[in-house]
Amino acid sequence: MNHYHCWLQYRPMTNQSLRQSYQQWLRCVSLPGGHPSPLLQSIRDELNRGIGAMLQMPVDFVEGSSPQNYLTVIGKPNQPLVRECLGPKLVEDLYQMKDEAYCIRTVAQAEGGRIVITGHTDRALLYGVFHLLRLMQMNEPLEQLDIRETPRNPLRMLNHWDNMDGSVERGYAGSSIFYEHGRITTNEQRIRDYARLLASVGINSIAINNVNVHETETKLITPAFLPDVAKIAGIFRSYGIQIFLSINFASPVELGDLDTADPLDSAVRQWWKERAKDIYQYIPDFGGFLVKADSEHRPGPFTYNRTHVDGANMLAEALHPFGGIVIWRCFVYNCMQDWRDRQTDRAKAAYDHFQPLDGKFLDNVILQIKNGPMDFQVREPVSPLFGAMEQTNQMMEFQITQEYTGQQRHLCYLVPQWKEVLDFDTYAKGEGSTVKRIVDGSLYGFKHSGIAGVANVGSDENWTGHTLAQANLYGFGRLTWNPDLSAEQITEEWIRLTFGPDPQVIETIAHMLLSSWRIYENYTAPLGVGWMVNPGHHYGPNVDGYEYSRWGTYHYADCFGIGVDRTMKTGTGYTAQYFSPNREMYESLDTCPDEYLLFFHHVPYTHRLKSGETVIQHIYNTHFEGVEQVKGLIEKWKRLEGKFNQQTFDHVLSRLMEQLEHVKEWRDVINTYFYRKSGIPDEKNRTIY
Amino acid sequence: MNHYHCWLQYRPMTNQSLRQSYQQWLRCVSLPGGHPSPLLQSIRDELNRGIGAMLQMPVDFVEGSSPQNYLTVIGKPNQPLVRECLGPKLVEDLYQMKDEAYCIRTVAQAEGGRIVITGHTDRALLYGVFHLLRLMQMNEPLEQLDIRETPRNPLRMLNHWDNMDGSVERGYAGSSIFYEHGRITTNEQRIRDYARLLASVGINSIAINNVNVHETETKLITPAFLPDVAKIAGIFRSYGIQIFLSINFASPVELGDLDTADPLDSAVRQWWKERAKDIYQYIPDFGGFLVKADSEHRPGPFTYNRTHVDGANMLAEALHPFGGIVIWRCFVYNCMQDWRDRQTDRAKAAYDHFQPLDGKFLDNVILQIKNGPMDFQVREPVSPLFGAMEQTNQMMEFQITQEYTGQQRHLCYLVPQWKEVLDFDTYAKGEGSTVKRIVDGSLYGFKHSGIAGVANVGSDENWTGHTLAQANLYGFGRLTWNPDLSAEQITEEWIRLTFGPDPQVIETIAHMLLSSWRIYENYTAPLGVGWMVNPGHHYGPNVDGYEYSRWGTYHYADCFGIGVDRTMKTGTGYTAQYFSPNREMYESLDTCPDEYLLFFHHVPYTHRLKSGETVIQHIYNTHFEGVEQVKGLIEKWKRLEGKFNQQTFDHVLSRLMEQLEHVKEWRDVINTYFYRKSGIPDEKNRTIY
Repeated sequence: MNHYHCWLQYRPMTNQSLRQSYQQWLRCVSLPGGHPSPLLQSIRDELNRGIGAMLQMPVDFVEGSSPQNYLTVIGKPNQPLVRECLGPKLVEDLYQMKDEAYCIRTVAQAEGGRIVITGHTDRALLYGVFHLLRLMQMNEPLEQLDIRETPRNPLRMLNHWDNMDGSVERGYAGSSIFYEHGRITTNEQRIRDYARLLASVGINSIAINNVNVHETETKLITPAFLPDVAKIAGIFRSYGIQIFLSINFASPVELGDLDTADPLDSAVRQWWKERAKDIYQYIPDFGGFLVKADSEHRPGPFTYNRTHVDGANMLAEALHPFGGIVIWRCFVYNCMQDWRDRQTDRAKAAYDHFQPLDGKFLDNVILQIKNGPMDFQVREPVSPLFGAMEQTNQMMEFQITQEYTGQQRHLCYLVPQWKEVLDFDTYAKGEGSTVKRIVDGSLYGFKHSGIAGVANVGSDENWTGHTLAQANLYGFGRLTWNPDLSAEQITEEWIRLTFGPDPQVIETIAHMLLSSWRIYENYTAPLGVGWMVNPGHHYGPNVDGYEYSRWGTYHYADCFGIGVDRTMKTGTGYTAQYFSPNREMYESLDTCPDEYLLFFHHVPYTHRLKSGETVIQHIYNTHFEGVEQVKGLIEKWKRLEGKFNQQTFDHVLSRLMEQLEHVKEWRDVINTYFYRKSGIPDEKNRTIY
Repeated sequence: MNHYHCWLQYRPMTNQSLRQSYQQWLRCVSLPGGHPSPLLQSIRDELNRGIGAMLQMPVDFVEGSSPQNYLTVIGKPNQPLVRECLGPKLVEDLYQMKDEAYCIRTVAQAEGGRIVITGHTDRALLYGVFHLLRLMQMNEPLEQLDIRETPRNPLRMLNHWDNMDGSVERGYAGSSIFYEHGRITTNEQRIRDYARLLASVGINSIAINNVNVHETETKLITPAFLPDVAKIAGIFRSYGIQIFLSINFASPVELGDLDTADPLDSAVRQWWKERAKDIYQYIPDFGGFLVKADSEHRPGPFTYNRTHVDGANMLAEALHPFGGIVIWRCFVYNCMQDWRDRQTDRAKAAYDHFQPLDGKFLDNVILQIKNGPMDFQVREPVSPLFGAMEQTNQMMEFQITQEYTGQQRHLCYLVPQWKEVLDFDTYAKGEGSTVKRIVDGSLYGFKHSGIAGVANVGSDENWTGHTLAQANLYGFGRLTWNPDLSAEQITEEWIRLTFGPDPQVIETIAHMLLSSWRIYENYTAPLGVGWMVNPGHHYGPNVDGYEYSRWGTYHYADCFGIGVDRTMKTGTGYTAQYFSPNREMYESLDTCPDEYLLFFHHVPYTHRLKSGETVIQHIYNTHFEGVEQVKGLIEKWKRLEGKFNQQTFDHVLSRLMEQLEHVKEWRDVINTYFYRKSGIPDEKNRTIY
């Protein structure tokens, strides 16, 4: 495999009969006539690239029908050839499809046949083409295709925390692919290749700058940078991806135009309207603004004694005439907390801030909510804000970049975590009110909704630092398209696309990926407590790293026990933010799941888990086990030597060896900390320092 | 007071009779004739400045005698007028004086009189003049002066950790006064004023760049920068101060000239000889090199399997023809230690590295040894290397800049600490082998020796960030001149010079200063254990900050006890590095002083100190007491409002208020940490979190 191409390897077909079959089907492709849109051009390019590489033959593109026996037809349902192939009944049915949905169908004919890819938009056709190419890469037969795909989430988005100096906040894969030295990059090919990767998994939106908007980035919405932003937008547009910009709420002041950024000030409102007008002149399909306001020292409406509603709606009004939306982040909490204060609970902040505002936001505002109430820890309960605002658009924010999960030096495949979150039943409207049904908009009928992920890519040749971390980007995209896909299915797809069809490779890497999150959890912060990392960069163990800080992130370990009492009865009352029966499940020690025990309860080290282990013995066991498990990953990987290119083998092995070294540090620091604190020896007498 | 002028306030005399007396004595000053040296010019300038400001009159400078009844005579003992004033017997006596020594004597005559300031060098005369001006600033009568002063330490040195980008490593008073934007500053007046301050307290040497020599600074020894370095040297020369440069041991390689920096390679040796020649062409009285080698990732002879002797002697040979010296730092230890390893002891490193090399260094090499075996903690025992190398020049390194002692935001007057160190009896040659007798060279007859201090000044208008931190610089200089001065005497001098004669001001500030080190110790790391600070910047409490790190700095606190066992019997054996009876004193729990208890022993929290308190109760008591003591400092300071300029009053008050806030953080973090860890409640039931 070539690590730059990720899951679009397009390796030459070695199976002769399959190759011949594919060659037959794809020799001739019918595309709509007329001047091709950029999207249709992308389709043509991708087919040329994919077919050329896999089947080593050119594609014969035609307009309309062809005398060929075999033909692949790409077109909208209202095109005569499509209607002719599918018949009037099916075509009528297809008219109900949503804009991004597509249908792929094989139609047998007396002599030869037709594969039809159809949908109402060019974007849908592009998705269909990527689907067909994926099937071919996975060696699936094309003879009896009958596929109908509709993306579940309207917004399938990436958030880039890229800065214009080229740095990436929480980036672990080199520098920004968008910026260098305070300017937008001239390396457009890299962005185009990125757009191809994203489109191939159904991503349709991207915010291209950090939510912490610094001085230079504040100017992205001005004519100083808009021509360059428009170039990026143009590349993404040709792959069906809308761009968003993160904005600085204080822009009217910081750009020197006004003395205030008060959202109720008419001059401020007018200012934003004019900015929106400017932007849409350059980028007619601009997506809108992503906003981090009144959070971690970012400016916001609070400065002017205004509310989030005032702030978000002002921006929404400015964007409304052009169809733009405002994505307003709910990551708002007191980051100047006093560690002595056990009543203030950061976990409660998003709900407390936003839930009372339900129904007050304009309908082109979406609240973007992190999956958990804290901040992308390896294990957190689902944010109770999901489902708690019936009349307010909500979307999910996942973190693909591995800030707290090994920074792409450790293997930590996050699809299983995201699945757990999406499948979580909030009971907001009774049983079955899963998170995925909230964020896809179906539970409450949101006008806008979806899933965003903080991107994990950078300028590294392999995009993601750790080559296996490409699976997180792939899996994220696939889950946003269809959250019902199983982790196993996504994982196997990714491996087959990336590494090819060898069953041993598929089984081995699948096992490694699917076990890696739990392994990472084992050797890091136990039982949902979180935050035992070095402050600032968040890499490596530091049990008290955030214990006496201002960030609201505490474990309260003493010589008797550990954990945060978030119960209604004796704690911060956070459990009350959940709907029944989740509320009661977390409230009670008897029913609270072990993996969240220390998130919700303060217990003695001798407390017995449902597993029968004491808390302290669980800490020791999991941390010793974590190291053994990483050794197991290495053993597994080593057996794959020679199965694919040596460079990839060596690269992953070296990351795994680094992980092993670091895992020992985690094991020893955590075990030693708790042994020294509790004085309780390991039942198995293993070495603790 | 004007904070820029520090202790050279030269405030106008308000006492009328004293003013008249001073005017009589200083109206006319006799200086040696001929073309004045830069030092004599400095003397003239300083007298003009001081007398002009204090007495509001010009000085009448004459050569030789004068018909005046009253005359101040400044000159060398061989000058006719000096001989005439003092008489042949005294003059013969004075011929024994060392180069930097001076004599100030009032000689009554039939009508009027003479004050004679004499010494063998212009530098000595400058020191005498500063002494006279100091007496006047302190309102001392001049009628019966009979002063003989000889500096005890040959080298009285400042080490500047300044970088050419303008930053100062461990600087807390603004940016560098020497560099900005990679070049040497053009603000020569500031350097001249600095030289005046230093000369007035007897400093005679200064290293002007950081011991961590980065890329740009490596070039300071090349013609690219030597002309500018020579300008700085010229300014300091006119105040009797020699300059030194910190050098990069890898310079021959890093400057691109050679492939090796091996000290036994003849090309390398020749290279350094040529560099020395270059330097002395620009700066004929260049002092020499200050070297941090093989320490904290700095290059050194170890790279080439050579010894410190090889490295230092190579440089010494290069400097020898020009009279230069090599100051080789002994701050060498393993900074990649494993915290799990309890046998390796950083405290032992300097002794282990250097003691076996005794007698092997050339006699223009001096080993510069930090006061304690670790790194400038608020409380450390004296380094056992002092006195342990009879045949090797040694000097002391103190830290004036308050890296671990409040960073010039907290009040921490260090003269009492330095006094304790200098007065410590090593017993190296039996009783009375005090550190001050080792570093002044008298115990072993060192050819070179003295005291260096890491400077605490920067570009802040008041030089030291906290105005009261000026006292540390003053006190350092005075102690290097005469380590027998008491802390009280130095303190009173500084206050009188800086704030004037008001007894309430003197008493209050003296009490504040003299109590501040112990107060700082109270609320920070207890009983000599050290290192409970945030890693990196070293500000603020973090009990485990260095516990699981690579730096060799551990406290080993668990739920039963705390401390580092450095005994011979059960610990690392560090105590063996001391001479008897210190060795036995530290080895035994019965005799080890409380303030070093946790440095030498691991004890249970219930261990009783000599005070009768348990260790845990001592921790609680001192930390609660520390906060109350800081409140006491504030109360004291507030009573001084109106006694001097409001700006200084407000500035110090605001620093004290900041200290108070931060002290509470120290108290609560330390107490909470140990309460949570030990489970032992405070006997007095005060609030612990």
